Amino acid sequence: MSVFSADYWQISPVDNALAPQIRQIIDGKIKPIGSLGVLEALALQLACIQSDEKQQTRQSKVVITSPTVLLFAADHGVAMHGVSIAPQQVTGFMTERFLEGSSAINCFCRANDVALRVIDAGLLHPISSDANIFFEQRIAAGTADFSVQAAMTQTQVTAAMAAGEAIAKQTISEGSNTLAFGEMGIGNTTSASTLLATLLGLNASEVAGLGTGISPEQLCKKTALIDKSLRRVQAGKGCPLLDAELALTEFGGFEIAQIVGAMLATAQMKKTIIVDGFIVGVAAMLASYIHPNVKDYMVFSHHSAEGAFPYLATALGATPLLDLGLRLGEGTGAVLAVPLLRSAASFYNDMAVLDPSVLT
Amino acid sequence: MSVFSADYWQISPVDNALAPQIRQIIDGKIKPIGSLGVLEALALQLACIQSDEKQQTRQSKVVITSPTVLLFAADHGVAMHGVSIAPQQVTGFMTERFLEGSSAINCFCRANDVALRVIDAGLLHPISSDANIFFEQRIAAGTADFSVQAAMTQTQVTAAMAAGEAIAKQTISEGSNTLAFGEMGIGNTTSASTLLATLLGLNASEVAGLGTGISPEQLCKKTALIDKSLRRVQAGKGCPLLDAELALTEFGGFEIAQIVGAMLATAQMKKTIIVDGFIVGVAAMLASYIHPNVKDYMVFSHHSAEGAFPYLATALGATPLLDLGLRLGEGTGAVLAVPLLRSAASFYNDMAVLDPSVLT
Repeated sequence: MSVFSADYWQISPVDNALAPQIRQIIDGKIKPIGSLGVLEALALQLACIQSDEKQQTRQSKVVITSPTVLLFAADHGVAMHGVSIAPQQVTGFMTERFLEGSSAINCFCRANDVALRVIDAGLLHPISSDANIFFEQRIAAGTADFSVQAAMTQTQVTAAMAAGEAIAKQTISEGSNTLAFGEMGIGNTTSASTLLATLLGLNASEVAGLGTGISPEQLCKKTALIDKSLRRVQAGKGCPLLDAELALTEFGGFEIAQIVGAMLATAQMKKTIIVDGFIVGVAAMLASYIHPNVKDYMVFSHHSAEGAFPYLATALGATPLLDLGLRLGEGTGAVLAVPLLRSAASFYNDMAVLDPSVLT
Repeated sequence: MSVFSADYWQISPVDNALAPQIRQIIDGKIKPIGSLGVLEALALQLACIQSDEKQQTRQSKVVITSPTVLLFAADHGVAMHGVSIAPQQVTGFMTERFLEGSSAINCFCRANDVALRVIDAGLLHPISSDANIFFEQRIAAGTADFSVQAAMTQTQVTAAMAAGEAIAKQTISEGSNTLAFGEMGIGNTTSASTLLATLLGLNASEVAGLGTGISPEQLCKKTALIDKSLRRVQAGKGCPLLDAELALTEFGGFEIAQIVGAMLATAQMKKTIIVDGFIVGVAAMLASYIHPNVKDYMVFSHHSAEGAFPYLATALGATPLLDLGLRLGEGTGAVLAVPLLRSAASFYNDMAVLDPSVLT
């Protein structure tokens, strides 16, 4: 059965029949109703995800065990056009930094007690590392230049989805119930923007943005490149929308495809997904096109500074927890949301119940 | 010398002469410039606070040691008018919950590894507790009803400021370099709103809000009560603005006055202040009226859901880190910002330096 069929994934919806019961538990805490704002909705979502057909009672606990960032790195053929702030070799360079522990994601993981796994999903050059956080799941040495041909073959896209599934399931089987997703790949904002255009029927100028901080000249070039790529497959505004499989094959990256597979697997296992910013958000959208129930398991961590992010957030119905002007990727925004998940769990689990007689 | 004179506090401005040097350190990290958004500004502020006349070099570290919430609780005479969601006895009831560890602030402190100290700044009834997190600094058994007379005497307001100074300095001397502030006091949104009106020349309807969630009828009553109180001292729109001392004496609460003193002491000791929401924000504003340099040491944690909060944020020039729709107080928003401070420190301290040759 195809990894692009909903039947392959069999993702149960989160059982919202328990929501009123859980809401009552939250409302019964010693605080004014609703006074913890967004954290109440977050506690409700986590409790629903974890209720798993058993009754949610005042004794039930929400647990966040071994939260882990799965950071997928891959190269993009389209990067040869110079549409990024950095040259293509920076993908591999940064992946080595993740493995030595000196990048932003490493710092944030340590500061917030979150585990990290780094996956080579298709770097141009293999990395030699025996770090136990390193996983080699290379599909190929980067994608093809999607402005002239499909980014990957059908065999590759299927393999990438399956590789994502495998690492997510392994991480869950080793004790994590909260998977955050990050990415590294010079050129992958261009890939994600093009994917977004084909899914939502937007044009190149609507989806092209500054990425990690390109110049106005580069933005012109990037917009033209996305436009050319969309025309190649006759996608974008006014054209038929692509499905997830075709979109990923034409314009995807190996890291994006692996994230899609990993998210679907996480939801299948009824675990929590933390979505990072723009690129991971596009992967989340692709996952939701393959199986809509995956969204029930997603927590949206932060509002990316990428210009087209609002299109994505609206399409996903996402209201991210944080808005810190981040535009780095790596999963940095997702990690910063973990303390909010822990805080939501903590008040749900441990706050006292209000005796209404106190209020009279 | 009066605790309301700037000379008493002698707060040094944070030395921004080092800002370019620190900015250079941040920009030299292995990430695109500016890509960590608000966290870069936060790291810059913390490094400036901690630079303390010594050179900031690539070896300098920003440290967050024993972050502690000082949670001040006190009762308000004005609460007798029923302008809150809960009756007056809830102040003492909740303070007991803080001491037994079962309220929202306890949960958030535990989840985020933040210490808590609970201060009786003037509860109606003394609390008997030998908890080592409990500090008795009672000024009186609640303030007077400020709709008919001054909330406190000049002796009381001075004693409250000094008590706040004492607990802040003790906490710092015991190893904390990051003090977050929280409050508990039924009626204290009414007090804070009235204070805000007298400081900014606003009228009652502009400052009165829903607090932790009162009814429309209560809001009418609260607005009328604030209006009556402002008229009593001829404050508010079109009237001369009050200074911090007079404002606090007329409309303050003992917890608010102690927070003002504690904030000024924290800045005097060159330590970081984390400002919670609306009520602590009004205390921050009063502190800044007494010594403007105190603002250099303030991190604004979250955007309170209280309607008049934007007036306060604008007046303080504050752009809070979080916007989670919180309206609980207790310091809950301030604690949730601590992981962001730790994350900012962590990337400033530990991220690798970019070798520009990688980009060519």
